[in-house]
Amino acid sequence: MHNLPIPTEPELRATLQRIKPYVHHTPVLTSRLVNAAAGAELYFKCENLQKVGAFKFRGAINAVLQLTEEERARGVATHSSGNHAQALALAARMHAVNAHIVMPTSAPEVKSAAVAGYGAEIIWCAPTLQAREATLQEVVERTGATVIHPYDNHQVICGQSTVAQELLRKNNALDIVIAPVGGGGLISGTALAVKYYNPAIQVIAAEPAGAADAYASFKTGQLVPSVNPNTFADGLLTSLSPRTFTIIRQYVDAILTASDDEIRQAMLLVWERLKIIIEPSGAVPLAVILKNKDLFAGKKVGVIISGGNVDVRKFRF
Amino acid sequence: MHNLPIPTEPELRATLQRIKPYVHHTPVLTSRLVNAAAGAELYFKCENLQKVGAFKFRGAINAVLQLTEEERARGVATHSSGNHAQALALAARMHAVNAHIVMPTSAPEVKSAAVAGYGAEIIWCAPTLQAREATLQEVVERTGATVIHPYDNHQVICGQSTVAQELLRKNNALDIVIAPVGGGGLISGTALAVKYYNPAIQVIAAEPAGAADAYASFKTGQLVPSVNPNTFADGLLTSLSPRTFTIIRQYVDAILTASDDEIRQAMLLVWERLKIIIEPSGAVPLAVILKNKDLFAGKKVGVIISGGNVDVRKFRF
Repeated sequence: MHNLPIPTEPELRATLQRIKPYVHHTPVLTSRLVNAAAGAELYFKCENLQKVGAFKFRGAINAVLQLTEEERARGVATHSSGNHAQALALAARMHAVNAHIVMPTSAPEVKSAAVAGYGAEIIWCAPTLQAREATLQEVVERTGATVIHPYDNHQVICGQSTVAQELLRKNNALDIVIAPVGGGGLISGTALAVKYYNPAIQVIAAEPAGAADAYASFKTGQLVPSVNPNTFADGLLTSLSPRTFTIIRQYVDAILTASDDEIRQAMLLVWERLKIIIEPSGAVPLAVILKNKDLFAGKKVGVIISGGNVDVRKFRF
Repeated sequence: MHNLPIPTEPELRATLQRIKPYVHHTPVLTSRLVNAAAGAELYFKCENLQKVGAFKFRGAINAVLQLTEEERARGVATHSSGNHAQALALAARMHAVNAHIVMPTSAPEVKSAAVAGYGAEIIWCAPTLQAREATLQEVVERTGATVIHPYDNHQVICGQSTVAQELLRKNNALDIVIAPVGGGGLISGTALAVKYYNPAIQVIAAEPAGAADAYASFKTGQLVPSVNPNTFADGLLTSLSPRTFTIIRQYVDAILTASDDEIRQAMLLVWERLKIIIEPSGAVPLAVILKNKDLFAGKKVGVIISGGNVDVRKFRF
């Protein structure tokens, strides 16, 4: 276990105030029909309606806001093929900070176009973790930029906690809060916020069965890396870090999984009934609820929808 | 012109209070990228996130709430193949009122299933306006039910006005409010609310070029019926009634049209950027804005998204 500091309650509350002017205060939606299907009272916190279409913007903007003047002048850098790349690019541009984004050549053109559209420098590399890390190292040596990791970062976790903070300030009378887990940034921030605000609320992490490394880590008490994950919930392929694993072990009550078929059904239900576009990763919590109805029966559940970045011209149910 | 009473400001305000416990207070969404595309500041009032996925529920619930005890006991009836059928069925069920819905045999199964799911009686008829009206007449003679017309109804128009009322209570500093026009229920309620709350705000109606009967009526001053409309915005095929035409002539500032191609592009932009599912009819206002950028340049515009009932398993951009 690592002994880096865990974000404190005052830090989380300060983060909420700090990023408020820059983020969308996303709505909480409910659906009678989805509640009937689930046998529970679900409150969907819609981060698909956040800037860049995902909660990732919260962590990125908080990290950028916490840079010193000198750090701002040198810029920020990361490697990402997905939502974090866009989030960091936008957050940096909003504060006139240069962003250097290492992207694998396999990244969807729509994502790289968005990153370029935010004025970030894109540095292409081979689609392996090794190439990504080596290329990022070169960028840092060349520019002196500060690396903003997508989840293994104190300020990023503080930022992600604001999703649950907004939810609980609106409705503190929940029995359970559930969020997806990939690298663990969102669920770490969520778990800390929930337990600081109201320790009586259970925190559940939802993971695709095809990428169940967090489930295995939680069960065995050892950090099990994600090897050859196989799920269409492509936002949740990464491994926990020692930092996020430490928080998850201490503050998360359970991790539950759902299959791709179950995730797809839950995603369809949200599109059809809530009339919002969510990506596969964002549907995992509802898939877990529908799969484990006995656990959630009659409960008031905060459900965090992580994002909505899916190509609506190509996606087929 | 007809001389039925036009809903008054106190009536509209009383309606907002009356239906508040039964409707979703739908969110107002913004998008930096859509604003950049439009060259204007757009505030999207999202009635696709309303119960039954459309503003129609507001009018239906208000009509049901205004029935006398005796009328409630005899039930309500209408003919509709679309959102009004579902809206009235749900509103009736919420108050233990019987609903008799005349539906053409051409109605999509998903819609009739929803109506049946709300416990309404479905009476099938041939897919012509004559058959629909004759069948409705039979139902009324048999049951004594009160007919709730989808738009040619005082209480329904009062109900639809609450969309703009909620929008203006949140943000009264708008230059323009724009909403789609079909039969004219939504735009009538919208125009009345806007002009009562702040007469300095312009009201624009948006109509598909392939069903531009309201445009023609407005221009000529004569009620031109909708004949052989040809547009994929299938919620906007109907004709104005003398009642809605009277209100529109008096309270709407302009009617603008957009082609199906322009509507489809606007719809895609909303799905991709706002991450919400809207039906073709709901995209007509944005299509009109993008087509007439000079008119809207730099303006603060309230954009009413009417509904989100589209079959996401079948729809293709």
